[in-house]
Amino acid sequence: MTTITGATRLVGIVGDPVRQVKGFAEYAEAFAARGLDAVYLPMHVRAGELAAFLAGARRMRNLAGLVATIPHKQEAFALAEPDAAARRAGSANLLRPAAGGGWECSMADGAGFVAAVEAAGMTIRGRTVQILGAGGAGRAVAMAAAEQGPARIAVHDTDCARAERLAADIAREFPGLPVAQALGESEMLVNCSPVGMNDDTRLPLSEALIPRGGDVYDIVNRPDTPLVVAARRLGCRADHGRSMMLAQIPIVTSWLFGP
Amino acid sequence: MTTITGATRLVGIVGDPVRQVKGFAEYAEAFAARGLDAVYLPMHVRAGELAAFLAGARRMRNLAGLVATIPHKQEAFALAEPDAAARRAGSANLLRPAAGGGWECSMADGAGFVAAVEAAGMTIRGRTVQILGAGGAGRAVAMAAAEQGPARIAVHDTDCARAERLAADIAREFPGLPVAQALGESEMLVNCSPVGMNDDTRLPLSEALIPRGGDVYDIVNRPDTPLVVAARRLGCRADHGRSMMLAQIPIVTSWLFGP
Repeated sequence: MTTITGATRLVGIVGDPVRQVKGFAEYAEAFAARGLDAVYLPMHVRAGELAAFLAGARRMRNLAGLVATIPHKQEAFALAEPDAAARRAGSANLLRPAAGGGWECSMADGAGFVAAVEAAGMTIRGRTVQILGAGGAGRAVAMAAAEQGPARIAVHDTDCARAERLAADIAREFPGLPVAQALGESEMLVNCSPVGMNDDTRLPLSEALIPRGGDVYDIVNRPDTPLVVAARRLGCRADHGRSMMLAQIPIVTSWLFGP
Repeated sequence: MTTITGATRLVGIVGDPVRQVKGFAEYAEAFAARGLDAVYLPMHVRAGELAAFLAGARRMRNLAGLVATIPHKQEAFALAEPDAAARRAGSANLLRPAAGGGWECSMADGAGFVAAVEAAGMTIRGRTVQILGAGGAGRAVAMAAAEQGPARIAVHDTDCARAERLAADIAREFPGLPVAQALGESEMLVNCSPVGMNDDTRLPLSEALIPRGGDVYDIVNRPDTPLVVAARRLGCRADHGRSMMLAQIPIVTSWLFGP
């Protein structure tokens, strides 16, 4: 529940679709706890229209900033001045107006992912980690996972060139770490592909490759994704995107409104 | 109090400044009463930047529409396809996406003004009406007042050319009605100038010209504008913009979401 005034600052989450987005009550609570007169809102912007939208949104002087979700994370990066996290991920999920005009961007998916898996008692260090999906979120999660010291990382995407590019970028950033563009066995499996979103009932990989007794994290924000359901049935520790979304709220709030 | 979801549609009020805008709780109540998942929000857009803002806002697919306030009413008219009310006023305070791209506009200030003065027990028919301010709201109020059958209308603006243009337009639309570009005695005085907004302590005209025992309506939305305070002291029936804003809520809601 949010009380709007003429002085309320706006924070939009831009996506296509945007109906499935969650977290509005949690953002409202976080803003209220910090005493911010601000509201978190859905903004439905279609793929390919982010640049045109941003040009107009820049004129909305009470817009504190934007959270970008599918399919806008790579376009957000291309349209704004990135910080270190966004530069390494090659994608961005946060945008704010830059002082001199235009936009600055950051990428909080990686930090949110690491905070969420730690909170869930999962382990990245020393393990074989399989990442599915080399899009905006997949890149950020893979880079953040690589930083935690896994034994090796494999990345997979139905778009092979995209997976190859991510594997090469991780290898360059983390020279000692074995990295492959591959789909195989793992001890920790992370789904960053959109498979399983909304009413998609598919698994993002063959059930045989779900790591029995290992950790499974599905960044899709729904407690009963096909992957999470199968992983729990197979005895995995499993968690889903809600914890990653929640872990990002303080990160997003500080980035937009200051610490 | 408003509950936001991923399916919430947005209605913005664009103005500069926008902090002083009121009515957010009343719009929330009206939307809730109609079962609409929609939120009414301030959007701070500077003078001269409406066109650039609209070009981007058109890409926000869950934007139901916009209410335009000072200083955007004439630019809103120039940038959109007007209906009859907007065409006659030469200004617009409502914008909605047009089916074929671009925007449609309307002007609800006139209808809101007439509904508000009727509710306040004031009379336009048969009286000498003085309008102060020939901007967007002034034009709409003057045209709507002219339609109610006053004895005569006088319009005044510190920008003489603007007042002359409005007087000529009223004369053309209402051929039998005596109209002057003048400032003088009246039985009903309507302030549509921005004088008295925010912490402006000026009267919009000499106190000697406030019609003792007559009706005074100040469209500034504050109960204690200098004009309203002086008018009450001088024994006038007086009301202010809050009633005009409230009277517009059902008009705006129907125009944006259907009857």
